[in-house]
Amino acid sequence: MIIVLKGTATDDELYEIVEAVKEYGYSAEVVKGESKTIIGAVGDQKEKQQHMNLIGQLPGVEAVVPILQAHKLGSREFKHDDSSFPVGNTIVGGDKLTLIAGPCSVESEEQIIEIAKTVKASGATILRGGAFKPRTSPYTFQGMGVEGLKLLRKAGDLVDLPIVTEVLDLKNLDIISEYADMIQIGARNCQNYALLKAVGKTKKPVLLKRGMSTSIYEFLLCAEYLLAEGNMSVALCERGIRTFETATRNTFDINAIPVLKERTHLPVIADPAHGTGYWQYVSPIAYAAIAAGADGLAIEVHNKPEVALSDGGQSLKPKKFQAMVGKARIIAKAIGKEL
Amino acid sequence: MIIVLKGTATDDELYEIVEAVKEYGYSAEVVKGESKTIIGAVGDQKEKQQHMNLIGQLPGVEAVVPILQAHKLGSREFKHDDSSFPVGNTIVGGDKLTLIAGPCSVESEEQIIEIAKTVKASGATILRGGAFKPRTSPYTFQGMGVEGLKLLRKAGDLVDLPIVTEVLDLKNLDIISEYADMIQIGARNCQNYALLKAVGKTKKPVLLKRGMSTSIYEFLLCAEYLLAEGNMSVALCERGIRTFETATRNTFDINAIPVLKERTHLPVIADPAHGTGYWQYVSPIAYAAIAAGADGLAIEVHNKPEVALSDGGQSLKPKKFQAMVGKARIIAKAIGKEL
Amino acid sequence: MIIVLKGTATDDELYEIVEAVKEYGYSAEVVKGESKTIIGAVGDQKEKQQHMNLIGQLPGVEAVVPILQAHKLGSREFKHDDSSFPVGNTIVGGDKLTLIAGPCSVESEEQIIEIAKTVKASGATILRGGAFKPRTSPYTFQGMGVEGLKLLRKAGDLVDLPIVTEVLDLKNLDIISEYADMIQIGARNCQNYALLKAVGKTKKPVLLKRGMSTSIYEFLLCAEYLLAEGNMSVALCERGIRTFETATRNTFDINAIPVLKERTHLPVIADPAHGTGYWQYVSPIAYAAIAAGADGLAIEVHNKPEVALSDGGQSLKPKKFQAMVGKARIIAKAIGKEL
Amino acid sequence: MIIVLKGTATDDELYEIVEAVKEYGYSAEVVKGESKTIIGAVGDQKEKQQHMNLIGQLPGVEAVVPILQAHKLGSREFKHDDSSFPVGNTIVGGDKLTLIAGPCSVESEEQIIEIAKTVKASGATILRGGAFKPRTSPYTFQGMGVEGLKLLRKAGDLVDLPIVTEVLDLKNLDIISEYADMIQIGARNCQNYALLKAVGKTKKPVLLKRGMSTSIYEFLLCAEYLLAEGNMSVALCERGIRTFETATRNTFDINAIPVLKERTHLPVIADPAHGTGYWQYVSPIAYAAIAAGADGLAIEVHNKPEVALSDGGQSLKPKKFQAMVGKARIIAKAIGKEL
Repeated sequence: MIIVLKGTATDDELYEIVEAVKEYGYSAEVVKGESKTIIGAVGDQKEKQQHMNLIGQLPGVEAVVPILQAHKLGSREFKHDDSSFPVGNTIVGGDKLTLIAGPCSVESEEQIIEIAKTVKASGATILRGGAFKPRTSPYTFQGMGVEGLKLLRKAGDLVDLPIVTEVLDLKNLDIISEYADMIQIGARNCQNYALLKAVGKTKKPVLLKRGMSTSIYEFLLCAEYLLAEGNMSVALCERGIRTFETATRNTFDINAIPVLKERTHLPVIADPAHGTGYWQYVSPIAYAAIAAGADGLAIEVHNKPEVALSDGGQSLKPKKFQAMVGKARIIAKAIGKEL
Repeated sequence: MIIVLKGTATDDELYEIVEAVKEYGYSAEVVKGESKTIIGAVGDQKEKQQHMNLIGQLPGVEAVVPILQAHKLGSREFKHDDSSFPVGNTIVGGDKLTLIAGPCSVESEEQIIEIAKTVKASGATILRGGAFKPRTSPYTFQGMGVEGLKLLRKAGDLVDLPIVTEVLDLKNLDIISEYADMIQIGARNCQNYALLKAVGKTKKPVLLKRGMSTSIYEFLLCAEYLLAEGNMSVALCERGIRTFETATRNTFDINAIPVLKERTHLPVIADPAHGTGYWQYVSPIAYAAIAAGADGLAIEVHNKPEVALSDGGQSLKPKKFQAMVGKARIIAKAIGKEL
Repeated sequence: MIIVLKGTATDDELYEIVEAVKEYGYSAEVVKGESKTIIGAVGDQKEKQQHMNLIGQLPGVEAVVPILQAHKLGSREFKHDDSSFPVGNTIVGGDKLTLIAGPCSVESEEQIIEIAKTVKASGATILRGGAFKPRTSPYTFQGMGVEGLKLLRKAGDLVDLPIVTEVLDLKNLDIISEYADMIQIGARNCQNYALLKAVGKTKKPVLLKRGMSTSIYEFLLCAEYLLAEGNMSVALCERGIRTFETATRNTFDINAIPVLKERTHLPVIADPAHGTGYWQYVSPIAYAAIAAGADGLAIEVHNKPEVALSDGGQSLKPKKFQAMVGKARIIAKAIGKEL
Repeated sequence: MIIVLKGTATDDELYEIVEAVKEYGYSAEVVKGESKTIIGAVGDQKEKQQHMNLIGQLPGVEAVVPILQAHKLGSREFKHDDSSFPVGNTIVGGDKLTLIAGPCSVESEEQIIEIAKTVKASGATILRGGAFKPRTSPYTFQGMGVEGLKLLRKAGDLVDLPIVTEVLDLKNLDIISEYADMIQIGARNCQNYALLKAVGKTKKPVLLKRGMSTSIYEFLLCAEYLLAEGNMSVALCERGIRTFETATRNTFDINAIPVLKERTHLPVIADPAHGTGYWQYVSPIAYAAIAAGADGLAIEVHNKPEVALSDGGQSLKPKKFQAMVGKARIIAKAIGKEL
């Protein structure tokens, strides 16, 4: 870390700061300038974040600036090459793009089986579907629960696709771990650290969605909660951030794709449905995400979006989905990947 | 709801939309204009949100606009007068301001007892302290857990103050309910609906902190999850939102205070420490919050912020806290309240 | 517009509101529901925005909701098909993508001519370069001024490329109109209405950059200022918006591309350099923008970015630019366009 | 500045960086740590910002971190004590709060004179009124222009109040300088550097409004454009920033008040009307601003807001204004100031 002193800092204050820095286990080099003095403190203490906070409060300190990224196991410095891991009969990460597709919510056996067949036929590699749903209002449909989970499993088995579904709380984690091939942690739970730790312990593959106001720096630390439990099968999912723009439900942060690919070896999946909120923008943003370097897509598909119990407005119909996959395939090929 | 048709909508589409509206149980009044046609649909169906989504996808529909606020039990229409409720030996809500104070984290018996005495002496009405801590990095201090909870209880009993502490997950809810007088739901869990429902069921008083990207509209719906379980002892806490500004850790949304006071009967508490992130701005923002109409303050106080294990940089020392309370008291009086 | 009445509105208030609506020249249809009454007011008065404000203040009114988009000449309703227009010897808009390239600032004759040759060779269709620079700090390089403008013209003529440069104020508009083929209005001036009107009057092609906190709705109204002066040669440029994310300088709003293409017939250009702020992210975001449907790119190219007098950190070197164009060409082809 | 090297930086790269740093005129101290090397570079070159950009692009450099604030003349380091300056017969800055009041737009002689009398009677110290109006849509009222300016002057003279009005462009600057006592630079022009320089040259007192996405750091640099021209009579005006929250038109950044008071000696004025967008929130936010340490208020007052040609919805009626001033006076007194 770098400690910048106030212009008014006294020699005594400087001395005290240097002593504190050393006591915490860092080397301390003092650089005196005409108008400012700075101290370079180098070391790799585990409690560095906390030490920075504490030093920041000493008299005479103007600012403390970190010089190492806070995430470790997920960093390119820890592992240089792209990660990939199996989810059922497919691989997430690598040159073959992942295509997660299915309805927002499982609504009935008939619905999930029909959609499973259709997305499989169009090239999906993982079947998605919500059984437990986080909803903004307590007065709307909250998901079919365990029954929905079992139907999703049945549909996945029928069409030979692994399944991913969201976990909302510790209570249902065991049963979801039993039935699902991959566990999704939703945007609202991205910084629910208790849940992250518990999911990390399951060692099941995880699809971690970015919170709508989670910075990339924090997102990588959320993933670190999973990795620190020994679970290295983590895919990061960009799904839009909250900004002032109201023409779309969220602002899909396309920049996050190259930034994440630079900073971490973990696969990056794009969710253009939540990233825009309207079905007519899903395909263009899906193409954009692939062009920017995403390792896969998560797409909401519904056979009858106009009667969907949730998120119908951002779901593609099977025909639109098929068309989207066709075009996405060409773009993937253009940048040397395969869908 | 109001349904706006596209300029290109055909009579057949209009007919289909009207039929759908009626089928969902609403009255439908068609208003034809020169360039646009609109339909007024009135009714109070429970699944209105979902119906709006579905109608929004019908051919010919440009937009669907809600005309009723989505929250019910928390609204001024449901209950006109300000709510108040007891927390231990004090009342939250009403003309006497609530003053929640204490350290970010309980760190030791000595620490929490010393701080409890000092904040009590300065006029605090509720003692706060974190036992289970949500931290951005998995590599930093995560709280003392149950032991911390028991120490907080001991300190509260010693100085005769009720206590509030944060719950992170369902696992620890029972023990926190047993020991604490008020349960805090933190900003990161504001939209953790599973937790909201469970806390609602306990019927314990709740301090619900606004998420850092939770809109006021959504915040009221989060409270609704608690109220809908029959728990009416809910205080809302504004603690800053995430914006582009980096001079402060968050942007304290002072506007939220009069907006919330207008829309809900629930008490509104201000947390200027998280709302700014720096101790030197805590007092001015505390004064501002009272002047804007807040029903109370939540303040981080630490006897030795420079060695605090968390949030030291935004904690007040006991003397500064005492001075702050003194000035806040004068401002409260100026607007006809008492601290 | 739709007028929603308060639950407490009296019949007298309703009557007064209906009278006011009619007086302003609109038809008024009253829709009474169980809990709310709404009024549909249809008409196309020029001062509609103002009327809405005024009606919104009448006793008994809860909200006034617009039902027509505020922009007219730029809308797809006004002109259904994509617009295109000539800039020098090239066409902006249509199936052939526009490729604007050049340095952030013109720095010397040698520099601009060298870069002009190199971007021309790689396929650029318009040469860019700043002569008058808006800078955050008054203590940094402010551009070469008129001399820079003349050098840019000379370089453009030499390689047979039309030129675009930014206008900062009315003072230099005449000379810029004389020398440049296309006038750029920068992000900081996007809502500088005096400048918009004056540039509109010149009838020169315009590259209008989105302000960093300008919503899409407002952006279209900014363009409307130009169109309303009779200048229909306007290209819109997405260049990133300001959000909480600090890993990049701005957040490139990829969603804006399909949204703008849906709402307006004007061409949409993407500026990935400002949209990210770092050269290593420029190429992926350029590919993404084309995949999402942009009509062109604006790219900063510098032969020696490490000594550039401005924005060096987000400029591509000629070789990187050439490689980017090659790959962008393949993606353009994949979606049926040509670069 | 502090230069952080990549973990992979070679000794040759380190050498080149140190050479570059020295060449630009800074001292260079190298601090080698186990995992990272940093260089402390100290000096006060005028082109420091640019040097930082250039060094940031050298091979081996991970980041360049500034250690001095970029603004100079406006900083507390340049001038420790609060500034104040005369505007007509009043003083802006100091213990007596400034109270700017008047309509959004001058609409007629009768209107402005009536409002001038009423705000003077309630304690206003400066009369405001817009003659040239920046409007989002080209189809709405754009102000009375020069005629409005003359009416404002007449009204100010009649009630013996200095006047402030907004300048939109260079074209009208001369006539505004002639008639007005203080020149307002609006939020949309906050980073219009050409205008800032020109207004700085007039040496007239300036009310500089913060742009809706201007950071505090940038806001101080905008002021610096005025100060660098030798104009030290500058008051900064916080008027709300753009965030995701839509319950209010903008989010009034109350934090900005103590932050600005800490970093600059210039007076800070609060504009709660634009900061909220709704008249019913104006008074609470005005109280909050005073409590937080603002040096004054700018309030929109209209005798008939329901027929105002602009911003009627956020204007106070004379009686409400009078009541607001009364309560604000008590709060000011509570914190040792006078209104």
